[in-house]
This record gives sequence, structure tokens and C-alpha cells, in this order.
Amino acid sequence: MSKIEMAGQKKLVLITGRAYPELAEQVAEELGAELVPTDARTFANGELYARFDESVRGSDAFVIQSHTNPINEWLMEQLIMVDALKRASAKRITVVAPFYPYSRQDKKGRGREPISARLVADLFKAAGADRIMSVDLHAPQIQGFFDGPVDHLFAMPVLLDHFRKTIDRDDITVVSPDMGRVRVADVWSDRLGAPLAIIHKRRDPSVPNQASVHGIVGDVKDRWCIMVDDMIDTGGTISKAAQALKDNGAKGVTIACTHAIFSGSAIDHLSQDFIDQVVVTDTLPLPPEKRFDKLTVLSIAPLLAKAIHEVFEDGSVTSMFEGAA
Amino acid sequence: MSKIEMAGQKKLVLITGRAYPELAEQVAEELGAELVPTDARTFANGELYARFDESVRGSDAFVIQSHTNPINEWLMEQLIMVDALKRASAKRITVVAPFYPYSRQDKKGRGREPISARLVADLFKAAGADRIMSVDLHAPQIQGFFDGPVDHLFAMPVLLDHFRKTIDRDDITVVSPDMGRVRVADVWSDRLGAPLAIIHKRRDPSVPNQASVHGIVGDVKDRWCIMVDDMIDTGGTISKAAQALKDNGAKGVTIACTHAIFSGSAIDHLSQDFIDQVVVTDTLPLPPEKRFDKLTVLSIAPLLAKAIHEVFEDGSVTSMFEGAA
Amino acid sequence: MSKIEMAGQKKLVLITGRAYPELAEQVAEELGAELVPTDARTFANGELYARFDESVRGSDAFVIQSHTNPINEWLMEQLIMVDALKRASAKRITVVAPFYPYSRQDKKGRGREPISARLVADLFKAAGADRIMSVDLHAPQIQGFFDGPVDHLFAMPVLLDHFRKTIDRDDITVVSPDMGRVRVADVWSDRLGAPLAIIHKRRDPSVPNQASVHGIVGDVKDRWCIMVDDMIDTGGTISKAAQALKDNGAKGVTIACTHAIFSGSAIDHLSQDFIDQVVVTDTLPLPPEKRFDKLTVLSIAPLLAKAIHEVFEDGSVTSMFEGAA
Amino acid sequence: MSKIEMAGQKKLVLITGRAYPELAEQVAEELGAELVPTDARTFANGELYARFDESVRGSDAFVIQSHTNPINEWLMEQLIMVDALKRASAKRITVVAPFYPYSRQDKKGRGREPISARLVADLFKAAGADRIMSVDLHAPQIQGFFDGPVDHLFAMPVLLDHFRKTIDRDDITVVSPDMGRVRVADVWSDRLGAPLAIIHKRRDPSVPNQASVHGIVGDVKDRWCIMVDDMIDTGGTISKAAQALKDNGAKGVTIACTHAIFSGSAIDHLSQDFIDQVVVTDTLPLPPEKRFDKLTVLSIAPLLAKAIHEVFEDGSVTSMFEGAA
Amino acid sequence: MSKIEMAGQKKLVLITGRAYPELAEQVAEELGAELVPTDARTFANGELYARFDESVRGSDAFVIQSHTNPINEWLMEQLIMVDALKRASAKRITVVAPFYPYSRQDKKGRGREPISARLVADLFKAAGADRIMSVDLHAPQIQGFFDGPVDHLFAMPVLLDHFRKTIDRDDITVVSPDMGRVRVADVWSDRLGAPLAIIHKRRDPSVPNQASVHGIVGDVKDRWCIMVDDMIDTGGTISKAAQALKDNGAKGVTIACTHAIFSGSAIDHLSQDFIDQVVVTDTLPLPPEKRFDKLTVLSIAPLLAKAIHEVFEDGSVTSMFEGAA
Amino acid sequence: MSKIEMAGQKKLVLITGRAYPELAEQVAEELGAELVPTDARTFANGELYARFDESVRGSDAFVIQSHTNPINEWLMEQLIMVDALKRASAKRITVVAPFYPYSRQDKKGRGREPISARLVADLFKAAGADRIMSVDLHAPQIQGFFDGPVDHLFAMPVLLDHFRKTIDRDDITVVSPDMGRVRVADVWSDRLGAPLAIIHKRRDPSVPNQASVHGIVGDVKDRWCIMVDDMIDTGGTISKAAQALKDNGAKGVTIACTHAIFSGSAIDHLSQDFIDQVVVTDTLPLPPEKRFDKLTVLSIAPLLAKAIHEVFEDGSVTSMFEGAA
Repeated sequence: MSKIEMAGQKKLVLITGRAYPELAEQVAEELGAELVPTDARTFANGELYARFDESVRGSDAFVIQSHTNPINEWLMEQLIMVDALKRASAKRITVVAPFYPYSRQDKKGRGREPISARLVADLFKAAGADRIMSVDLHAPQIQGFFDGPVDHLFAMPVLLDHFRKTIDRDDITVVSPDMGRVRVADVWSDRLGAPLAIIHKRRDPSVPNQASVHGIVGDVKDRWCIMVDDMIDTGGTISKAAQALKDNGAKGVTIACTHAIFSGSAIDHLSQDFIDQVVVTDTLPLPPEKRFDKLTVLSIAPLLAKAIHEVFEDGSVTSMFEGAA
Repeated sequence: MSKIEMAGQKKLVLITGRAYPELAEQVAEELGAELVPTDARTFANGELYARFDESVRGSDAFVIQSHTNPINEWLMEQLIMVDALKRASAKRITVVAPFYPYSRQDKKGRGREPISARLVADLFKAAGADRIMSVDLHAPQIQGFFDGPVDHLFAMPVLLDHFRKTIDRDDITVVSPDMGRVRVADVWSDRLGAPLAIIHKRRDPSVPNQASVHGIVGDVKDRWCIMVDDMIDTGGTISKAAQALKDNGAKGVTIACTHAIFSGSAIDHLSQDFIDQVVVTDTLPLPPEKRFDKLTVLSIAPLLAKAIHEVFEDGSVTSMFEGAA
Repeated sequence: MSKIEMAGQKKLVLITGRAYPELAEQVAEELGAELVPTDARTFANGELYARFDESVRGSDAFVIQSHTNPINEWLMEQLIMVDALKRASAKRITVVAPFYPYSRQDKKGRGREPISARLVADLFKAAGADRIMSVDLHAPQIQGFFDGPVDHLFAMPVLLDHFRKTIDRDDITVVSPDMGRVRVADVWSDRLGAPLAIIHKRRDPSVPNQASVHGIVGDVKDRWCIMVDDMIDTGGTISKAAQALKDNGAKGVTIACTHAIFSGSAIDHLSQDFIDQVVVTDTLPLPPEKRFDKLTVLSIAPLLAKAIHEVFEDGSVTSMFEGAA
Repeated sequence: MSKIEMAGQKKLVLITGRAYPELAEQVAEELGAELVPTDARTFANGELYARFDESVRGSDAFVIQSHTNPINEWLMEQLIMVDALKRASAKRITVVAPFYPYSRQDKKGRGREPISARLVADLFKAAGADRIMSVDLHAPQIQGFFDGPVDHLFAMPVLLDHFRKTIDRDDITVVSPDMGRVRVADVWSDRLGAPLAIIHKRRDPSVPNQASVHGIVGDVKDRWCIMVDDMIDTGGTISKAAQALKDNGAKGVTIACTHAIFSGSAIDHLSQDFIDQVVVTDTLPLPPEKRFDKLTVLSIAPLLAKAIHEVFEDGSVTSMFEGAA
Repeated sequence: MSKIEMAGQKKLVLITGRAYPELAEQVAEELGAELVPTDARTFANGELYARFDESVRGSDAFVIQSHTNPINEWLMEQLIMVDALKRASAKRITVVAPFYPYSRQDKKGRGREPISARLVADLFKAAGADRIMSVDLHAPQIQGFFDGPVDHLFAMPVLLDHFRKTIDRDDITVVSPDMGRVRVADVWSDRLGAPLAIIHKRRDPSVPNQASVHGIVGDVKDRWCIMVDDMIDTGGTISKAAQALKDNGAKGVTIACTHAIFSGSAIDHLSQDFIDQVVVTDTLPLPPEKRFDKLTVLSIAPLLAKAIHEVFEDGSVTSMFEGAA
Repeated sequence: MSKIEMAGQKKLVLITGRAYPELAEQVAEELGAELVPTDARTFANGELYARFDESVRGSDAFVIQSHTNPINEWLMEQLIMVDALKRASAKRITVVAPFYPYSRQDKKGRGREPISARLVADLFKAAGADRIMSVDLHAPQIQGFFDGPVDHLFAMPVLLDHFRKTIDRDDITVVSPDMGRVRVADVWSDRLGAPLAIIHKRRDPSVPNQASVHGIVGDVKDRWCIMVDDMIDTGGTISKAAQALKDNGAKGVTIACTHAIFSGSAIDHLSQDFIDQVVVTDTLPLPPEKRFDKLTVLSIAPLLAKAIHEVFEDGSVTSMFEGAA
């Protein structure tokens, strides 16, 4: 026989971009692993460079990047890292994007618009990514944009767990700040055994980050409102929603959200009096200037670590969320 | 010089599957064209066959199919026609699927589920389709499933035009029968200058075609309710919603919907007393046994014909919907 | 070092569509395995759904489907299952199609025809299939339609084994019912050490399932004729051939065939007096109404099980057929 | 408006490889065109080079190559020319391969064999070919190997036309030299109104260019036999078949064939006494040393020119063969 | 006949990113066209958005972007514009990137490095680009990174034309500042009929933008040196080279270069005394703070406009450079 | 649980084309393996055939071919072997091409030229290759032509090792025979601690294998010159360079080169008096008629074997060259 044989082996390697290395470090710590030492740099003219200091040949590689501003830099850095992994013979490459970039541009609202969320999936594919892992996609259909497996994680168990531990009251109402988020609020109301209310407003598609609140469907008077959303960008919409809740007699307003983008004047908006509490996860970095008194930040690293572990060991990511919350 | 030169020319050809040839004939008539004579057949063992009786070489071909039950037959027939066009050197092939098949399976709700709406887009691509034209996609993100242009048409102008002509009253309330449809109802309420109400219920994802109505958010007492939806399948959900509206004091209930699937016991559900009127378009065929007294069917052919004409002449499909309704 | 290492492992999973689950169960039994519990369903409007109840992550998955009528349903179901496996991170996906659907549409006989057998290969690829396993392809060139490995199994050993055990006579003549099948009959005549005869007829390509027998080349008088074919569809052609053999003095007529499609009036055709025996395999299901006295059905499951075992263990499928018959 | 507009125009250009430029020149003459002046060369180490001396931007380009020995050189030259056309912005590239290279390797006869005919189709695709035009494919299924249109031309009208003009006798029998060619001989017998006979032999798949004649099915005594085949390679098989015909009392033997490969000792084989006449087309070049007294060569150029013309003008290639012979 | 026919027409549209709109405006002016009005924006979190205000259906679209710092922003903006064009049914999309981004990362210098120049070509392809147009690629092999036509323009005629008009002296020596640029300097020395000298130094691949000059091969004493390079980034290398020339007795030093990146302390480097003159083109924008006394900027717009015109009219881009300088 | 599980295993197989089987045998010997017995043949008409005599299912296959003249034969043979491996279910296929064919055609020098080096990469991809391994690519950018990992090996350590062992003198000057090779000579001068000189000539791009020497930049009088090049084709250029060195007073001339193509009159050129020594590796076969007195041939097999071993064991190929020479 003319073959040389040896036992197969699986090797997991973790790589991080420079957007939020602390998150990757926490993930590594949870997994009992270390990040692959990487030389990542920006040249004087703005071009990026990345090189791994150890062999990644044959490995099951996870490239973690947090798509915060400047978002295109970090996206490009991750693409370059995927390209380097492909050319260095990694066996399987998983893009870990806790916050999926451009997730709100997921359809053509009008003629001649791009579908940038699909473009991002195609760019990851073109660079050589085999899989994507992300948390709370803006629309679950984004899973279908990638031609391959997408591990869609949910931050809800993390958030609910926090509320169950910290809130002990029976006057809670779950509020959807938006027509498009009603479904999520509905699930929360079910899990918390609390009634539901909906903010009824219209968003002008041609003017981003603006909204005009119309009214509230459902009962919020003398209730402690938990408003749930997948992301807070400039915070304008949600703060107006909070104000409307208070104007309508709400006792308190807690905002729960997965992705704390906090761009523009978000901190100002969220620090206003009519908001009592803001609870978010750290899928995106929150430097000191984005933190404020009422803010509670929950770590997303344990969830990511567990999912990466399941993927590496061919376990089930779905079962992580069965009956979990 | 060693070239032979001649003036370029564009040729539009219309082809129809066997699911609903009457629709394609109406489209052809609107365009002042004829359908390409086609030999389409089903062999004894269930395999399909299609062959065009005229040359389609170099043409701009539109293959119209209506994805009614048996939906997989008609999907496969359309794929076979696209394959035949590709091999017969058509220049550009547009799949016209007024009702996009499998549009509700547009995400992984649970682990190990398919995303069949993406699969369908990939099958069209694999067969050789260059573009897709469809009406009222269940989720607009489906546009991003296809790697190429998707012309997304809206039936709303057709439906609204009908209501404007036939309904003359000021006690209308627009009702969303579902959390997922709130956005569309919101647009209708804006266009009709009427208030909005929402049916609050939960659908068990593991049991299709079932729903349990919870309650109504908003005011429907003594109002004439127009419930808008993109499709009616078995009609169970929407008939329960109608009943709930009447139970809550609604004066009348009109249902407006684009895709009249009408499967299972839909006719029974929709013929019940608490429903006053049902208005649909004919993106899917409605044979006599699916018709009933309260049903009004509006023709979708003029809209399709106009869009095909714009595509062929490199006009703008988007502008068809600007300020249209 | 920053890697986590663990020993690699291979996992075989068997999945079945709903066309002929008994076949898959027999294959599983032969392999000492169980089928993955699967929730496969048809919705009221004809759309299909499939979901696996266990994790298939990292597995070597074989999806068995028997493409009987309604053939497009079963094809689509298999495509949906492949899509679900791809998105559930199966490592390798093999489509097991004992009877390759649309295998007779393997070329353009005339202009503007599809090549549906190639289309089917492309659809499997688009859905995510890595390999195909099939039995007795109508044309061996179909292997070249798929861009990847195709395991082409032969039922001849199964059939020949049966004849060797049951027929003990020296007056056998092998007959090809068709110009296109001469090669196969030639191999049989070689293996059985029996002379060859050929039915000389012409089939009108535009009228399926019809044939006009012309005459017989070779000697059949006082011979027991074994007519071999890859498939019997409506049985019209082969029954006329049998009649011609008897008219020309044949003592007996046995029909041996791999794929028992038996559509249309096949049972009537095959039950006629001038046919003495019909021997087939069960690549396609044969419900009671398709069975009749003269029919013998041989199980194809052991062959499929052995081939799946070889593929999983990186053995050789080819060697299964070396000197086998 | 911000567009610059101008009338579209179609430009046909003809390019030839160096294998058989005379054929391309005849095609050009038939079309009233000239070949694009091309600098094609072989470097000292065997590498090929090609460059067109005129702009081909936006053109409908046809690259004609005759795949004679050294077949891999000419295949590679054609691939390089297609690559150059793609990079020079030709609008559409059609590979004209009158004799499709590697057409006999169209299936896996045994394990671990390539399917080189599919590989060739993939190589043309990889280089940038949009379409293929070929004459008398060894198996019509090869059309399905290419993912795009294939124009399959038939030389039969050319050959039959010759026989109708030159042979005036009523004792003709059409003979198939091979089990695999029976179908073609059948069509000829139909067209000439002559009976059919078949040479019954077996070819050892592991020893190319060898055959062992067994016998003749059908009547050839005192008949003038026309043996039809798609190609003659070393001529061993067909000359043994001719001898067998004469041994069985045939009056005369004419061989008709499309592709005159004539390799090895073909000329010796075909010059033997028991062969009266050989009629071929010039899909492959026939230099003086491959010509002999009994040989008649018919020009294939008019057929190619007509097909190219139809393709360029979006006419129908199929209709060239309807009722043609 | 069932076709609708109309004359074909070609429409050119010009689109610009926001990096350097002035360049695109000049190109449009040269062509007698207008830019398509475009709504391009950056959202608060750094995500980009683009939408064209006019139909681009069926058009031959050129998307001009100048890849200056922040280079990843502008690259992503161009990708988004290409995606929008693809989904808006543009017929052909050409990426115009006068300075090809990441062109220096064109190979793996060490293990586990990316080849970002290839990645960029793949990203353009994934977004939907059909062609690329660029000026003075860092390595001509980059043309081979894109799977399609690349129009490679040369700025040399523009630069040489300037020197011929402004320099009238016979003591010129052409100097290559770098081992990798010797070939280009060689062509210049040929065109100007001037001797050649080479700066002999080594660049540490792991430390970008640094160099250590070793010495000069060739004679520069009492000569006016023209140093030619394709790009000046931080200017460190070239200014040290200029100093070395002066140290070795050069009379004067003129620097000629296509791409004026001018990042970091480039202006300081280039303003030093031992540099007499710097001549560049404006493939990249040069805002006031990047301009200085000795700098001459030549417009690249006429060259781009001419090439776009040739591409649109299916002329020859190559012939623009034949004997041009 | 319904899975069958077993331990994964990796199997390395080595396959050789017929161009230079001795090289593959040496590689196998170094690895302690045997070549897979292969039936590779050329048919009478020039078509190639290959079949492996053992199962390669699931293997990590390396296909070694040496692209010597007739280069297109050997390229096609390797493609056919890759296709056979793909269809035989090899797990990973690495093309080992010590001399990358068509590596000099790596860019469009003029309009309407092919980029054959990219074409070759695409052909390997189309056939099914996952990776490429090659030695001393003519341009390192060729790595970017392949969409996957390329292991780029360097022969320099092998050559330098030889010189360090055999040459003991301090009057060495490293000479680049060509503007395009200066970079490599620069590295050699660094490694040997010897000064650098450059031959200044111009090569007419339209006339291959010709060159006109101009002069020498740097000092060669009374020096022993080592001229380094990546390949010697006809040897014309390098022999003229050697003559020029001697004419300018060089004491001795040694030529060091990786790829000994030695086509045309190379042996005559290299045997001339003014060349003292030629040292090459055997990436290409050197039959007796290509050998001469002054020639030393170093074996490349150990380097290839080591790299294959590293790839199979997921080690690092790069580290083989760190500080190696």
C-alpha cells in the first residue's frame, strides 16, 4: 500500500481584530485558550496589514471582530484576516461578528439602493469565510444572505437572566419601541409573564436616525416599562419613546438592548431623566466616554465562548437556547 | 478590417408555465404580444418536459409561472424552462413569480431548518435566471437572497385604487391581523387617513396554519375594519381575527390581500358570517371552486405587463410606485 | 502555543425523505444504524418542510430519497433537506438517489429542449450536495453532469445472482429490447454465456412512451429470452418486444430490470400472457397495487448499505463490482 | 439627464488557431469575412503565445480550432486565445471545436478514471468561453457537460447528400460497426431506405484501439455495405469489420465517417483491399500523407459558416437540420 | 411571430464616490456628460449609504473612486455603489480606481500574510464589477488578479509630455530609487535618450515606510537627475535617495511620480532643500495642505476620459499608448 | 443517538505524471512512501489517459508533475489526474509544479494578450485542485493568481548551501543578468556578503529569447562573478551576459539558477568558454543530452519532500526558510 497514514486531529485557534480585543480575550479565557499572536497594523496611507505569528495550517479558525465605528476599517481588517487564513491553509474559517455590520440595510426600500447586508455576506464569502456567527441579527432573514451555515445567537437569555435576578416586581409592562420590533417584545412579554404595549410611530426612510412618535397602543399608566430593542444607535428614537411612556403615566422606564452602538449624541439622549435604566451587552466596545450612571453592561463573552466550543466539538448551538430563558 | 457588423436589436419574448396560463395571456395582451408556443408536458412517471416551438436565441425572455398547488411541479417546470432558454441562447432570462414560492421559509426559526426561500433563489440562479420579478414578497429581505436584480412590485396601488373607488365612508380602521404585518397596515392607515389597530396573538411555529388570538390593541368598536395581509393560506388566522373584531364591536370586516392561496378549508373560513368582504388579486389562479359570493378578484396582469415593459425598455420599475397610491 | 486540540472523529448519519422510507430503514438496518428522526411535512398549499431532530453538525450525511411519482415533490424535498444539512453544518452531504430523476432527458434531442438531467445535478450542487450516489444511470455520461464524485452502482450483480440461483437451463438468449440498450445486453450475454438478440424498432422522440417494433436481429426460436433494461416506465415498449419474441417462436420471456417505474398502464402491459416473469429491484417503491403474480422484487438495500459503508470508511466502491458478477 | 447614448451594434470576428487554419479560412470565405490577424507562436520551451493584432472589444468572437494531434497543444492554444479575448473585452466568446477533444472519455468506465470530456468543458468555461459549437459529438450527453449553450451540428446531411449524388444502386445495406453506434446506423438506414446490419463484437476497455470481431447480425451477402461511424482513429476496428463483411459475402464496402483522426497505422488499415471507398469530412486536417486513393474528403466549412451566421444573427441552428437529410 | 422587437441602444453613465468628486467632474466634462446625481452618506455609526437619483437600468456604468485615506471607507463606498448598480440592473459595471488600493500587498512576502491586492479584486467581483480600470499598477501582474478585463492605463505619456515641454537640457540622468522600479526607469531613459542610474538599498519588509540607502550604481555627478517612481507614500525613501544623489554631486533632482499618496510627514520630506522639483498626477486628491511650492500637479482626467470613451465605443485602449511617449 | 462514529484518519498519497517520474520517486523515498501505481497513457491520436490502481478516497493527494517540453502535454496530464482524484473522492488535492508553467506570461504587456499564468491557475482550480506548491515563481504575485493556498518554496538555501561548501574565495561579486532579477541578486549579495553588479540591457518584448546587452553597472574587473537567475531557457541572454563580464575583466563566471529549461541551443550557449560553471536544480528533468561538463545539478527532491511533509502534518512551510540561508 502506498499511503502514509496518521490520526486526524482538530485544532481550534482564536484570532481577534483590533476593534475590541478585550472581548476576544474574554472569550479565550472562557475557553481556556490563548489568542493567536497577530501583527495587525495600519499603514500611513490607511491601508491595513495583518499577519499571524504562528502556523494556523489545518486549524478551525475563529476570527472575532466587533464592528464599531470606524466600521469599514474593522470590516476590511476582518476580511484581510480571513484572506490570510485561507492562504495559510486554515481548514475552516468562521467569522465571528457579534454585531453584524450593515444589518439594517437588508432590503431595497427604494429603487437603486444597495442591499449592503447581503454585500457584506458576499464579501465574507469572497474572502474565504466558511461560516458566520452573530448575535441578534436585525432581521433573521440575514441568515439566508450567506451561502453556508450561520450560527445565530440570542442575547435574550443573558438579558432576561439579569432582569430575573435584579427586578422583583409585578407591575412590569414590556414595550416595543417600534412596529418592526413587536415580535421580539411579544416573546419577552411571554417570558416575563407581563403585558405588552407598542409605540406607534413612523420613521422616514430617507432621513436616518429620526423618528416621530405618534402614540401608545396598550396600557402603560402606573407600570414599570421595559423597552426592548436589538440595537441603540443615536438613541433618538428610544429616548422619545421613553419620554412618551413617562408622559403617559409610566412609573419607570428600563431599556434593554443587545447592541449598544451609542453613536452621535446617544449618551445625551440616554442620560435624560425620563430614562431610569439602560441594560446592554458588550457586543460592541463601550469605552469610558460611552458609559454613564444608569448603564449596566452585561458580558457577551460567555455566550460566544460556549457557541464556539459547540461548533468546534460538533455539538449543537441551537440547544443552547432551548428553554434557556 | 476583419469584422462583420450589423445593428443590434432587442427582442422580448413571453413564456408561460402551465400553472396559470390565463394570467400570462392577459399580460401578453396588455403588451400587445403573443406567448411563445410551447410544448410543455408531464410524462406518465411525473417527469416534466418543455420545448419552445420558436427560436428564442438572443431574446430578452420572461418566464411567467404562478406558484399554486402543486407548487413543486410548477417550480420545477419553471426551472426546466429557464434551463431550456439558457441552452437555447436567450440573452437574458427573467423569472416572473408573482407569488414567490416558499417565501415564508425565509429564516431559520430553529436549528436544522432549511431556508427554503434562499434555496429557491439559488435554484433559479443554478438553472440560469438573470433576474426575478415578484409581487409583495413576504419579507422584503428576500430580494437579498438572489444574487442579481429583483423587481419587487407592490399590489397596494391596485388594491387601494379599488377601495377608493368602491368605499366611501369615514369610519374605517386599518387592522393588522398579525405582529409581523404591522408595518404594512401602518402604511395603509397612512394612505387611507384611517386609524390603526393590531391583533395581538401568538403563532406556534411548530404547528403550521394555526393561531391563537389574544386580543386587540387599538379601537375597533363601531368601526369598519379593513384587515390587510400579504397572503391568505388556510384562512384560519384571518377568520379568527375577523371574528375577534366583530366580537369587539366592529361594524364590518373587509379583508384585503395580495396572494389568495386559499388552501385547505380556506373557503369555509372566509365564507363565515363575520367576514363581510374579501378583496384579492389573481397572482395565483382562482378556479370556480375557490370563488365565493363575498370575493372580489382584481387583475394583477396590468401591473406585471407595465413592469415587464419597463424592464425591457430599460425604464424604471421603481417610478411605477412613486406617489402611486 | 495558542491552539486547543482534540482528536478528530467521523460521524455517519442517515436521513430519509418521505418517498420510500422503508428502503432507507433497510439500509440503516444493514448498517446497524438508525435514521435521524426528521420532521418532514407538506403544508396545505403544497410547500414542503423538513427539520432534523438531532444535531448533524460535523457529520457525514447521506440523504436517501426514491424519486417515484410525484417525482418533483420528492426531488424538492431532498433539495430542502440538503439545504437544511448545509446550514446545520454537516461536513459532507451525499445525495443518495437510487433512481436518478430525469435521467432520460440527458441531451438536447432537438433545439430549445432542456437537459433536465444536468439541471438536476446543478440543483443538487446549488442546494449544497457534495456527492451523488445512484444505481444504473440511464447514460453513464450523467456522472459527468455533476461537478464532484458520483458513485455509480450497478444492480447487475443482484439480478445475475438471482438468475444464477433460480434459472437452470441452457437455452437462454439475452435480448436487448432497444438499440440504446445493446451494450448492456451484450455484457449480460457475456456473463451468462448466452447468445444475444436485438429488437430492432424506432421510437418517435416527440411521442413519449410509444414505440413501433420492426423485427428481431438474432435467433430466438425455441429459446428462453431474458430481456434486460435499465427501467420500465409504462411498459408499452417492452411488452410489445415480448410479444414479438413469442411471435417469433420464443419459448419463454423473462424481463430483468433495475428501475420499476411502472407508471400508467404498466401493470396491464406486464401482466399479459406473453410475458412469463418480471424481475426488478426496489430502487423505487412498489406498493401492493403495482405488484402482480409474475413479479419478483429484489432488495437493493444491501448494495446501497455496502456502498455507503465504503464511502464513509474511505474504502473503494469500485471494488464492489470487480469480478462481482 | 446624465446619460450619453448611442446605437448598439454587433460585430462578428473570426479567429483561428494554428492546427488547421485552412478550415477557418474557408469558413471566413463562406461568410464573406476575414480572419483576425493573430500572432500565435510556440516558444522554445514549448509554451504557447497568442495576441490579436486588432481590437476585439465588444465583439461576438468565434475561435476555431481543429483538435488534431498534438491535441493538447491545440487545446491549450484555444484556451489561451479565449483568455486573451476575455481580457480584451470581447462581448461573447464561442469555442468552435468541430471535433470535440477527449469526447470518448465521457464517463467513468472504472473507478478512479477521469471524465476528461467534462474536464474539457470546464476548462473552456474557466478560460471564459460562453458557448461551444461542435460537430457530431461522440455522445450527445456531452452537450450537458457545458454550463451554457452548445450548438451541436450534424455532418449527416453533408455525407448523405454526397451519397445521393454519387451512389445509384438498390442493393445497399447500412452497417453499424459497433454496438454503440447502432442508433446512428438506424437513422441512416431510415434515410436511405436500406436494411440494417450490425457487427457484434466486444472491445476490451483496458486496451485502446483494439477490438475482436464476433459476427454479423443481419444480412450482408451480395449487398453493398455502407458502414457509418462518427470517427475513425487507428482504423483497426473498422477495417476488421470491413473484412468480416467481405468474408460474409458483401459485394462492396463503403465507410462513411465524420471525424477522420487517422492516427497510427490508419492509412494501412484503410487502404486494404476489402475496403472499396472511404468518405469523410475535414473536421480534422488531412495532410497529403493521410490521403489515399479510395478517400473522398467533403468540406465541413459551409456547415460551420452557416451555423456561425445563424448564431450571430440570432437565427436558429436547429432549423438547419430539420428535414435536411 | 411572438416577439416584440426594438433597436438596441447603449447608455453611458458616470458615478462618483465621495473621495475625490472633482476628478470625476473633470472626467465628465471631458466626455461632455454629467455625473449621475447620487445620495451618498455616512450614518452616525460609520455605515455608508448610496442611492442613485436616476434610473441606471441597462446602462454602461463607470464608478469612479479615488482611494485616498481613509482608504477602507472609500473602497467600501465603491463596493456599495457597485452592489446598488447590480441590483438596479446596470448592464455593465466598470470600477475606475486610478490608484488601485492595496496594490503593494500583491504577494506573500512571509508566511500567513494576506494578498490584499487579490482580495480587493475578489471584493470588486463579489460586489458585481465586470471590469476594472486603473492607472500605473504597482505590479502589472495585478491585472491577473481580476477575473475579467482590466484596462491598465499609463501616466507616463502625461508626465513625459510635461517634461518635454518644460525641460530643455542635455545633462539629464534617469534614476531608479529602488531595485523594484529599475524596469520603469529603464523605459524612461530610453524615451528621454538619457543614461540610467540606480539607487542600491534594502527595505526591511517588516517595517513599512522605512529604507536604508546603500549607494548609487551609475554616474550622477554634475547631472540633473529625474527619479521616477509609481507612488510616493511617506516620501522617506525617495527623499533619502534625493539626498544621496546630491551627496554624490548631482546638480539637480526632479521627482516624477504617478500616485501622490503623501501620507505621514511626506510634505516635510519632499520640501527639503536637496529636492528641486516634484511632478505628480492627481489620481489621488491633493488638498491645499498637501501642496507645496516645488510641486507640480498634472491632471489625469483627460486620460481617464479618453479611456472610458474607448471602452464605451468598443475602441482600443491599448492604441492610446502606442508610440504615445 | 442515530450516529455511527469512528476515529478520523489522514492519508497521504503521492502521484506522479510521466514528465519526470524520477523526481517523484526521490520525493517518495525521502518521505518513506511509495507512489500510487498509475496507469497513464497517450492514445494514438494524442489524447491522454490516467487511472490510479488503488483507492484514493479520503486521501490528502499530491500530484507531482515537472512542466518540461512538451509542456502542454504534461499540464493536461496533471489536470486529468486532478479530475480523476476529484471524482475518486480525494479529500484534498495539491498540485506540485516545481516549475510553474507559463510563469513568464504573468501580465498583459500589450493589448489583447492573454495572462496565461493566471489561466493556468484557473485551469488547476477548474479541474479541482485545492492547493498549489511551486518553487521560485518567476513573479511572487503568481501566488495571488490562485484562489487558495500556494506554498512558495525557495531553492536559494539549496544553491547557497552548495556554494558555501564548494567555493572558498573572497573575490566574489553577485551579478544580476537582468533588470527584472535585481531584487534576487540583491538578496544573494547580502547572504554571501559580496558586492553587487547589474547587467543593463533591453529585451524586445515581441521577440522572445533575444536580448541586447548594453553594459555593466558595478565593478566586475578581477572578480569571480556569480550570476543568479530563476530560470535559463535558451541561454542566449545569460551567455551574452557572461561574455560581457569576461570582456570587462571578470576572472570567472558561475551561473546559478533554479529552473534549467535548456531549450533550443541552450547547451551550445552554456558550453562556451567564457562560462566557467553552471549550477542548477532538477525541478525540470535533465536527460543526458542536456548535460555537459561544467554543469552541476542539485536535487530539489529533499526540499519538496520536506514541504509536503509539513503540509500533510499541518506544520509550517514558511519556517523552512526562516534564517535558512
